[in-house]
Amino acid sequence: MTEFSIGIDCGGTHTVAIAYDQHADMLRKSVQGPANLAVDPTEAVKNIHAAILAITQSLNEKDCNKILIGIAGLSAFNEIEQLIAELDFPNLDIKIINDAQLALIARLKGQNGLVAIAGTGSVVTGIVDNRSVRVGGWGHLLGDEGSGYQISKLAFQQVTKETDLDEISNFSKAFLKEIGAKNITDLISIFYKLNKKEVANFTPFVLKEAKDGDKVAQSIVETATKGLADQINLAMNKTDWQKSTLNLAFSGSVVEKSSYYRQLLIKKINCEHQEINILPVESDFNNAIAVIYAK
Amino acid sequence: MTEFSIGIDCGGTHTVAIAYDQHADMLRKSVQGPANLAVDPTEAVKNIHAAILAITQSLNEKDCNKILIGIAGLSAFNEIEQLIAELDFPNLDIKIINDAQLALIARLKGQNGLVAIAGTGSVVTGIVDNRSVRVGGWGHLLGDEGSGYQISKLAFQQVTKETDLDEISNFSKAFLKEIGAKNITDLISIFYKLNKKEVANFTPFVLKEAKDGDKVAQSIVETATKGLADQINLAMNKTDWQKSTLNLAFSGSVVEKSSYYRQLLIKKINCEHQEINILPVESDFNNAIAVIYAK
Repeated sequence: MTEFSIGIDCGGTHTVAIAYDQHADMLRKSVQGPANLAVDPTEAVKNIHAAILAITQSLNEKDCNKILIGIAGLSAFNEIEQLIAELDFPNLDIKIINDAQLALIARLKGQNGLVAIAGTGSVVTGIVDNRSVRVGGWGHLLGDEGSGYQISKLAFQQVTKETDLDEISNFSKAFLKEIGAKNITDLISIFYKLNKKEVANFTPFVLKEAKDGDKVAQSIVETATKGLADQINLAMNKTDWQKSTLNLAFSGSVVEKSSYYRQLLIKKINCEHQEINILPVESDFNNAIAVIYAK
Repeated sequence: MTEFSIGIDCGGTHTVAIAYDQHADMLRKSVQGPANLAVDPTEAVKNIHAAILAITQSLNEKDCNKILIGIAGLSAFNEIEQLIAELDFPNLDIKIINDAQLALIARLKGQNGLVAIAGTGSVVTGIVDNRSVRVGGWGHLLGDEGSGYQISKLAFQQVTKETDLDEISNFSKAFLKEIGAKNITDLISIFYKLNKKEVANFTPFVLKEAKDGDKVAQSIVETATKGLADQINLAMNKTDWQKSTLNLAFSGSVVEKSSYYRQLLIKKINCEHQEINILPVESDFNNAIAVIYAK
């Protein structure tokens, strides 16, 4: 008769559902396929449903206090109502928020502050003095500064720019090899067949080249981290953070996995005005834990 | 028994085939649907075939000297061979080049020089002293500076930037109305459903606002024309154009239809070093005329 709550972090590659007891210890975990409402709502419902079912089949559904789902591509309130109806668990208390809100609650453990998210996409979001703040997050074609998509796209553009100048750098030669292109025609043909996630997959290569000292790769990462830092600084200005120490957390594969990227980003954050508490990135952290801290 | 040649300009919205006699006077014209190899090769073949058939059914196929086809999305020589085979006119002398090459021959009437193309996409291409020159043209996601897609995208991004700053300009209010969006959520949802041509369709609105004196719209057009002018200047530097007067022509809906855009662009072109002959934009001009000037 252990009471539990379920947090579900839905993303473009997979859905992670975790059941926690009242001490926030993990009881069960289920990993399913992707769930992004903007990409494929039917698949999203199917995978979230499977994740909940996997847990309630081994734990007693009656002991489930609440479920908090964070999902990408959520844009309107009526989508939430419809999604809850389609999940078809009438006896469960289900709350749905977007994936950035889930990261915000999880990373700040329910406290005030900002979260800078940089994975395939990017956004800066926060709650300070009960006011919500958001900067960026307009998607890969209009923004997503500092994201994996942007870093990879800048690498592709580096090759096109150098082609126009008839000067191909060592970085571009290595990048052509990395993506499996013999020349610029191949590169263009490859790029336009990739989806945004597949484009972003070349980011670890660019970050590694930069970390290893390649000046061209470093300039790409500079551009990306400057873009995201500008958004963090703007978000800071939008809050009343002068009153107290501001918590700043990070979420997303790019910023979590690369300490090189994180250090460059932190250097560009406007720290001189006020005390800022940059929360460390925890390993094996999942945003599903938000269910413990959510009000 | 009038001998004739057929020029065919294939594009993303329609295919125009024109039969000319030996004095370059138009004999017949056929307009069919879109033909872009990168978008839909089957449709491209169907529409080009229909265009040729429409002409050879009223003129005598035996009197056709040659056919020159300019088509978008052409990337490899084997595509040309395959396309000619699929068109299935074994008795006709058919030559296929890409749409930018067709514009180059047509606009410069077979002479040396550069052509700056700005429609939905953009590219600068030229032939000077038997050397081919090309700058840009890397597609809407990697480049296309000064194109209709870029101008419209900058307008969408203007609204997102102002939203981040909590300062919505009159331009952005008017743009939201123009695209039928009540707010930023609508704008994002609309933008990500549009294809590149549909995005570019908002360019005349931005150009009109700029021409009417709106400072925000003017700054967008400044950015776009600066990007394309930089590419023209780079193309100039890549040629041996110091030796003689350089011809510069324009092609594409954005640069042809808006004299406001053209004037801004010309102001930014690096004219001080050498005589440059900017060819006037002719009304009712079709790049199909290239068949007359092609060698």
